[in-house]
Amino acid sequence: MATVHQEGGLGQVESKDVVLCEKGLPLDCGATFGPITMTYETYGALNNRRDNAILVCHALSGGAHAAGWLPDQRKPGWWDIMIGPGKPFDTNKYFIISSNCIGSCYGTTGPSSIDPATGKPYALSFPMVTVRDMVKAQRHLLDHLGIRSLLSVTGGSMGGMQALQWAVSYPERVRSVIPIATTHRHSPQQIAFNEVARQAIMSDPEWRQGNYYDSEGPRLGLAVARMVGHITYLSDKGMELKFGRRLRGRERIGFDFTTEFEVESYLNYQGRSFVERFDANSLLYMTKALDYFDLSQGYETLTEAFRRSRALYLIIAFSSDWLYPPEQNREVAQAIRRAGGDASYCEIRSDYGHDAFLLEHEAQDPYIRSFLQRVAETTEEFDAGTGI
Amino acid sequence: MATVHQEGGLGQVESKDVVLCEKGLPLDCGATFGPITMTYETYGALNNRRDNAILVCHALSGGAHAAGWLPDQRKPGWWDIMIGPGKPFDTNKYFIISSNCIGSCYGTTGPSSIDPATGKPYALSFPMVTVRDMVKAQRHLLDHLGIRSLLSVTGGSMGGMQALQWAVSYPERVRSVIPIATTHRHSPQQIAFNEVARQAIMSDPEWRQGNYYDSEGPRLGLAVARMVGHITYLSDKGMELKFGRRLRGRERIGFDFTTEFEVESYLNYQGRSFVERFDANSLLYMTKALDYFDLSQGYETLTEAFRRSRALYLIIAFSSDWLYPPEQNREVAQAIRRAGGDASYCEIRSDYGHDAFLLEHEAQDPYIRSFLQRVAETTEEFDAGTGI
Repeated sequence: MATVHQEGGLGQVESKDVVLCEKGLPLDCGATFGPITMTYETYGALNNRRDNAILVCHALSGGAHAAGWLPDQRKPGWWDIMIGPGKPFDTNKYFIISSNCIGSCYGTTGPSSIDPATGKPYALSFPMVTVRDMVKAQRHLLDHLGIRSLLSVTGGSMGGMQALQWAVSYPERVRSVIPIATTHRHSPQQIAFNEVARQAIMSDPEWRQGNYYDSEGPRLGLAVARMVGHITYLSDKGMELKFGRRLRGRERIGFDFTTEFEVESYLNYQGRSFVERFDANSLLYMTKALDYFDLSQGYETLTEAFRRSRALYLIIAFSSDWLYPPEQNREVAQAIRRAGGDASYCEIRSDYGHDAFLLEHEAQDPYIRSFLQRVAETTEEFDAGTGI
Repeated sequence: MATVHQEGGLGQVESKDVVLCEKGLPLDCGATFGPITMTYETYGALNNRRDNAILVCHALSGGAHAAGWLPDQRKPGWWDIMIGPGKPFDTNKYFIISSNCIGSCYGTTGPSSIDPATGKPYALSFPMVTVRDMVKAQRHLLDHLGIRSLLSVTGGSMGGMQALQWAVSYPERVRSVIPIATTHRHSPQQIAFNEVARQAIMSDPEWRQGNYYDSEGPRLGLAVARMVGHITYLSDKGMELKFGRRLRGRERIGFDFTTEFEVESYLNYQGRSFVERFDANSLLYMTKALDYFDLSQGYETLTEAFRRSRALYLIIAFSSDWLYPPEQNREVAQAIRRAGGDASYCEIRSDYGHDAFLLEHEAQDPYIRSFLQRVAETTEEFDAGTGI
């Protein structure tokens, strides 16, 4: 199938797999797990100093395919508007790395992968993974690629959590961080939305305690779970502008069960199409990782967590994001500053809600572009001469 | 079982049933439906002038039992803190009427009632009912009780919608309105939450297209539906104060599927206990009624809808209510004023979110008490000498 490449984009890209942690990765849950197959993509070229690498971390339902086009796919990567020649993450200057998280379902080992010990999918025998574990596994990928320090690590939502965790777990390897639309830990309301999603999946009899890989799986439950998520990704105002109270396929309310508002039809479509592309067990694992995430874990305060970091921070939030509202992002910036760090906080006005990090490329562009320039200029000595 | 009555409360009360609309009630959906059995309770005494009656309308999952104690129940009515001798809706002065909505499952005819034509529950053959239909049926109850005009009509959430609809549908019978934590119509986000709840129920194979009355019914789906609702009833800050990130039955996060945050355990409990007391089909009908509700339906603007009303309005909203936020309540007050009406708007600071209308009795008390006094003093001539 011929694909039309966006002008000025990356064109065709390639996904690669690497086997890491042959001896096993020690996880937060206490288990040691491995080997791990990790799917990743890279865009642009690593320079001779090996100091122009930027790690891009994906959100809950994303994967390694962040930009450009894979053969036979009708859409480019999830952050194609942000990554490419001349784009904010400019592949003429930077070497971009994007990998699929451990526990997900887009190539990297997760609950739907085959357990070599049994020849069957892990399902719920897959160990619980945390955001810190995801980052730990990514570190092995960087070692494999021979990259000692990152010019930057970035991502929105769960990707932003990973970016922050990188700075805390490996302060010596991170020169800057761009966490977007994220938080240092979930509030009970955020946990509650995830719990509803999990219950929707686990209430579906087709879930079968996670052992559904020889059947259709919990399609209806997974669709409901995604619908819940989708409400939290959009703002009330954004929905108002997009749908209002318009009806699907009629002019007047019929006062019956067949009348559907456009917003209902949109949500139902989002739920159904998600089922085609995501694994229900991975959603359980990923949402638990989100809920367990607490950047200050092991430190007395959040500020203490940032004490060892020498990175520069650009924190981006969106005015109408009520899933990870500006306040939570500002809190992170304040903790970094209290720890003596350098954090710029940037709040972008947008009606797109949480989804804004995927859509507002023009608004994010100048901040990211100039920030990365500053990082390149001011942190050259960060790890001069060390290397792996 | 002996019940301990709250001091100064109503003590034991009685639910009554009356059969109305023997010839059928014309509904918004076009059907004519009847007879309708309506369950209601009254508290206090109707005075000789028959002008001290206040109608209290319940929310989505409420019923006619608003105050006092029914035999063998462990809890008083849902608004017992607001209704009784010396309380804001003072039964020493006022005659309070509370009826169960058509379509609900607490006595009044609804989808779980037996269709006399078939001897089986109506299930989905029950006609779609709107908030306007609920109010139309209540009007027949008032006729039955010989009450021509209401001193006031009040309610929170869906009850507030009914109160507003009373003023628009029967302006000559309403001397005042106290809509609380409500809206004149649902935004797409509000519709979206309800649609997720409906999909959770209808995705449960035990729902069986609504024909589950000879079996357990969609227990898991209904529980998930209620969990979604519950998140919207509480504020983020209220959840933070109530649960934080505390764990149930452990001291430290175990990073596994058995670790439960207190908020998860609370939500799961709320979901499970709702299943014992509510009918899934009724939830489908009630949420559709909420979504279809549009007070300006049939008028050019919301302001025009209030043009014929001579009632006084006290509109109460709560600062942390994000289901029906202050803004939506203020919009109603503004429309009334633009129509030349008398609307006081009162925003109460509270961390209880939408649930505040059920909990903040002390904060609501002075506003309601003095408002009802003013109504009694200034509207005596409203319908002098007419009667039914």
